[in-house]
Amino acid sequence: MYEVEVKVRADHETVESALDAAGAEFVDSVVQEDTYYDAPHRNFAETDEALRIRREREPEAGEASADEAFETAKITYKGPLLEAESKSREEHETTVADDGAAKGIFDGLGFEPAATVRKERAHYRLDGYTVTLDRVDGLGEFVEVETETEDDDIQAAREGARAVLDDLGLDPTEQIRTSYLGLLLDGDGDDDGGADGHGNAGE
Amino acid sequence: MYEVEVKVRADHETVESALDAAGAEFVDSVVQEDTYYDAPHRNFAETDEALRIRREREPEAGEASADEAFETAKITYKGPLLEAESKSREEHETTVADDGAAKGIFDGLGFEPAATVRKERAHYRLDGYTVTLDRVDGLGEFVEVETETEDDDIQAAREGARAVLDDLGLDPTEQIRTSYLGLLLDGDGDDDGGADGHGNAGE
Repeated sequence: MYEVEVKVRADHETVESALDAAGAEFVDSVVQEDTYYDAPHRNFAETDEALRIRREREPEAGEASADEAFETAKITYKGPLLEAESKSREEHETTVADDGAAKGIFDGLGFEPAATVRKERAHYRLDGYTVTLDRVDGLGEFVEVETETEDDDIQAAREGARAVLDDLGLDPTEQIRTSYLGLLLDGDGDDDGGADGHGNAGE
Repeated sequence: MYEVEVKVRADHETVESALDAAGAEFVDSVVQEDTYYDAPHRNFAETDEALRIRREREPEAGEASADEAFETAKITYKGPLLEAESKSREEHETTVADDGAAKGIFDGLGFEPAATVRKERAHYRLDGYTVTLDRVDGLGEFVEVETETEDDDIQAAREGARAVLDDLGLDPTEQIRTSYLGLLLDGDGDDDGGADGHGNAGE
C-alpha cells in the first residue's frame, strides 16, 4: 500500500464550511508536538532520514500545564526513500511510556534536537479520503488530502485527491511538497518552500 | 541514592535452601532477554556506555512460541560513570509498546546487535537486601545481593551485603565485578572474567 497525499495552504474557516456543505465526517482532533533530531554520525538532510519524538494529546486537555498534559508519546524512524516513484520508505514507530526518558536516551547517544513542529490537527473523512486540517505554529494553516492505495492505482488516487481539494474550493496546483519541518528550517512562514532535503522524511 | 551490589557464582539449589532457612521472602521471578547494541559512532566498550532492549515475561508464560510470549519491552541507555567511587551513572529507561519497532529504529540508525543475554531471574528479600538468583544462558548460576543507600553509608551497605552472602553460605571474596555481557563477550563460561570495558554499563 502506498500513501498518496496532496497538501496546500488554506484558511480553515472557509474549508470547514466547505467540508460541512460536502457532508464530510469529523473524525478527531489532536495536538502534536514533534521534536526532530540530528544524528551525530549522519546528516539526515542528506540521507533523507528522520528521527522524531511525537507527543500527542487531545485539544480538550487544555493549555494549562501543557507539559504534563501530553498523554502519549511515540518514537518514529523514517528511512531513505526506497523507490522515488511511490515515495515508499522504511518506517518504524513505537509508543513509549516515558517521553522524558526517550529524550534522555537519544541525548545520551549524542542525538540533538534540531527543530520542534507543534500543530493542532483535525481529521475528516470525505469521499474515501482523509482530509486533515493542520494549524502549525509559526507556519499557518494547511489542508492535506490523503489516501492509501495499491501500486497500480497511484495515478487515479492522486487525481481523486486533487478533485477533493477542488470540491473544497482549493487549488491543487498550489501543492506544497515540503514537510512542515522543511518549511520551518527554511524559515518559510509565508511561501511554499522548496526542496531542501527535508521534503519527505520530516513529516 | 547509590546502588551497592555484590555478585558471586552459586548453585541455586543450595542457595534456595539457605534462603528458606533464613526466612527470606520470595518476591517474583522473570525471564529477561537483553539485546545490547554497538553504536555506529562510538565504541561503547571504551566509552563505558550501553544501549539495551530488554524483553521481559513471567516464567509461567511457558517456553512455547517464546517470541510471542514476551510481555513487556524496555529501552535502556546507561551513560559513562560520573564518579568512580559511587559507580553512579546517567541512566534512562522507558517501556516501549512494540519491541520490534524499537529494534527497527536502532537498526535503521545504524546500531547493531552486539550480544544477547538471556536469563531467568528470581528476587528475594532478606534483612533489607534484595537477593537475586540469576540463571544465565551460557554462563550458569549467580547470586547477587544489593541495596540502595545514601552516599555516606556505602561502606556499611557493602559490608552488610557481604554478611548476607556469608549467611547464605557463599564467599563474598569470590565477587565477580564483570557484567554478564562482559562475561559472555569474554567467553567466560567458567571463570570470573575480568575488566573488559563491559564491567559496569552492560548489566
